[in-house]
Amino acid sequence: MSGPAVAELVAVGSELLLGDVVDTNSAEIARRLAEHGVEVRRTTAVGDDVDRIAAVLEEAVSRAGAVVVTGGLGPTQDDLTRLALAQVAGVGLVRDEAVVADLSGHFAARGWDMPDTNLQQADLPEGGWWLPRVGTAPGIGLEVGEAVVWCLPGVPREMRRMLADSVLPDLAARVGAGVTVTRTVRTAGLGEGHIAADLADVVARCEAAGSPVVAFLASGGETRVKVTARATSREAALAEVEPVVGEVVARLGVGVVGLDDEGVAHAVGRLLAGAGLVLAVAESVTGGAVGARLVEVPGASGWFAGGLVTYQTPTKASLAGVDAQVLAHHGPVSEPVAEALAAGAAARLGADVGLAVVGVAGPEPQGGQPVGTVVVAVVGPDGVARARTLALPGDDRVELQRSAAQAALTALHRSLVRLLG
Amino acid sequence: MSGPAVAELVAVGSELLLGDVVDTNSAEIARRLAEHGVEVRRTTAVGDDVDRIAAVLEEAVSRAGAVVVTGGLGPTQDDLTRLALAQVAGVGLVRDEAVVADLSGHFAARGWDMPDTNLQQADLPEGGWWLPRVGTAPGIGLEVGEAVVWCLPGVPREMRRMLADSVLPDLAARVGAGVTVTRTVRTAGLGEGHIAADLADVVARCEAAGSPVVAFLASGGETRVKVTARATSREAALAEVEPVVGEVVARLGVGVVGLDDEGVAHAVGRLLAGAGLVLAVAESVTGGAVGARLVEVPGASGWFAGGLVTYQTPTKASLAGVDAQVLAHHGPVSEPVAEALAAGAAARLGADVGLAVVGVAGPEPQGGQPVGTVVVAVVGPDGVARARTLALPGDDRVELQRSAAQAALTALHRSLVRLLG
Repeated sequence: MSGPAVAELVAVGSELLLGDVVDTNSAEIARRLAEHGVEVRRTTAVGDDVDRIAAVLEEAVSRAGAVVVTGGLGPTQDDLTRLALAQVAGVGLVRDEAVVADLSGHFAARGWDMPDTNLQQADLPEGGWWLPRVGTAPGIGLEVGEAVVWCLPGVPREMRRMLADSVLPDLAARVGAGVTVTRTVRTAGLGEGHIAADLADVVARCEAAGSPVVAFLASGGETRVKVTARATSREAALAEVEPVVGEVVARLGVGVVGLDDEGVAHAVGRLLAGAGLVLAVAESVTGGAVGARLVEVPGASGWFAGGLVTYQTPTKASLAGVDAQVLAHHGPVSEPVAEALAAGAAARLGADVGLAVVGVAGPEPQGGQPVGTVVVAVVGPDGVARARTLALPGDDRVELQRSAAQAALTALHRSLVRLLG
Repeated sequence: MSGPAVAELVAVGSELLLGDVVDTNSAEIARRLAEHGVEVRRTTAVGDDVDRIAAVLEEAVSRAGAVVVTGGLGPTQDDLTRLALAQVAGVGLVRDEAVVADLSGHFAARGWDMPDTNLQQADLPEGGWWLPRVGTAPGIGLEVGEAVVWCLPGVPREMRRMLADSVLPDLAARVGAGVTVTRTVRTAGLGEGHIAADLADVVARCEAAGSPVVAFLASGGETRVKVTARATSREAALAEVEPVVGEVVARLGVGVVGLDDEGVAHAVGRLLAGAGLVLAVAESVTGGAVGARLVEVPGASGWFAGGLVTYQTPTKASLAGVDAQVLAHHGPVSEPVAEALAAGAAARLGADVGLAVVGVAGPEPQGGQPVGTVVVAVVGPDGVARARTLALPGDDRVELQRSAAQAALTALHRSLVRLLG
């Protein structure tokens, strides 16, 4: 047995094994556990079958000191986590009348009748404790042998709150002294190989010292550099992490967009807000995805005016004022058109900075340009527009649209750093 | 042992256990296996540790007749799937010079030197066979006892192609006669409970007959009704499925948006294209997400003109022509403003139909409206705009923006069915 610093995750639900639902809970829980110095060694998804759930739980508690289960706590006959957990622990289920009253009250307050099947949500394995409900399903904690099992609802919003409120404080107390701190340096437009080469001596030095740990992770057009240390206090861990983070940031320069949760959209927002500039976008191939990424940043209305989605070719002239002759001569997917769109969006929305993205997402080539061609243009307060043509890999329409939005934001970030730096 | 119709999936990679990457491969593989009548009983994620990978593989081949592994086939020292598989099978790894030559040629053609570490990608467990490479990593097939193990790269694009080309035909031949057919009726704007009640007799009849199987699945604002049958041929399975699909479609009426892969954006596109109508959108709270959803549909340029992203309040007047007094009097998140935006977008883009969405995604309330308030308006060719105010649940900004886009598309679909039906 490995103590509470070694965990396994179990996701319950036949929908996961049919591929109808992607299990995003496990990644989120793993991230939160890692912040508490708890290492997830295995995650398992299993269907709504009491014997199979029990088998997975039995194996998990034999290997790990902490087991976090999601799903199977609902009111239907397919919700079998409670039953399987009691079976593995060799205890009975006891109906808790206080929980019955709470659930009945929840339904009554909404003017609904509570179906009888919901009563099973008030059944607690003997020796267990409740994790207060977020939706209608309370969670369950239970010690099984030397392991602790926490069962949470599968609904991500309910899981998230219950994890934070009821599991992490308990787990932190059990793991005891020690805090793991990870800071992430997020980059865009730099390849993982390029970054690894630039940081080779930093990584070698940290490896020799044993701490902090430096790791790379590439996904979705960004490469993240993660710097992690564990120490007796948050301050002590940060004292190991921060100097290395500073070194990484200095070394990677303009490729760095932000730290931790801050992606390229946040970085763009911070630069614009800091300079008192307002942005407008013109999008064609992405249909609005660049704007959608920007407004995910809280407070975007301070620096994002809005945009033009010029999807059909004639709207590039009618909506954004692109010269019809330029459009006819160069075609819609071209640097002159992208530059005119960026300038047109900035002018139409009274913005200081304009960003435009046009391209070909397929399935067919367009105007002589192959699938994957994307042109990004940025115009700054000086009125000078600069465009760049990219050839994005792959042929999946939706993936290409996502990559085009990421490429547009990366190009804008670079331009803003140059303009404002 | 259970034969090849019972499968387990194994995802290899420490990034999965750190929560840095969400495992989307397993859901995709599970879906494709289900189409071939293969039931996935368990999926496991494990880190880059040869003993732990071997332990997971050993358990999987003891329970399932088919095991599909993703990840750990790359060229670095963290890529340990080959080694673990050979260990479990009790065989050695043999370097295949033909694969060495192929990989060297791949690098040489790009003017690169092949690092020595890439040579391990040419190592095949004795008795195994290659699955032709899509990127640089070839896949591996191996019989271990009575089970068959297929190892694929973790990169989704490579996994997808190799699964289709090298695994599914082999698996189908091993499973033998019989085809499973699932058709999915997709609905929007109907609750799962409402649907279950409407279809209770259909479900009961199918259960009594034993086939087809009818199941419900709610996610992302859509509820799907899945109808599945297995028979000796695709035709025979469809003969069981299609009448029930027809009954479900007729019963659920306007709530049905499409079948199988067709979501509400596809349904909107089909209705518009069929009627020869063109759509324009005006988006505020969603920043462009509605447009981005629409252009995911191939051929969207035939029926989607484009849109206006009126994020800062004054742009609702300057860009979309909303009366400044209406804006000042009712506030930006109001039915009169949404109606004027829908009409303004249609007018500015020369479109027949206008859709507008405004709302409050937080973190702060806006103009006296609480977080979660969303107003959707549609204006048809008759010029009459109709708005509706919704209170969406939750307080996560990004989730609310996604729900608002889904609600806007659902409202547009309803309006088009009414207009054109």
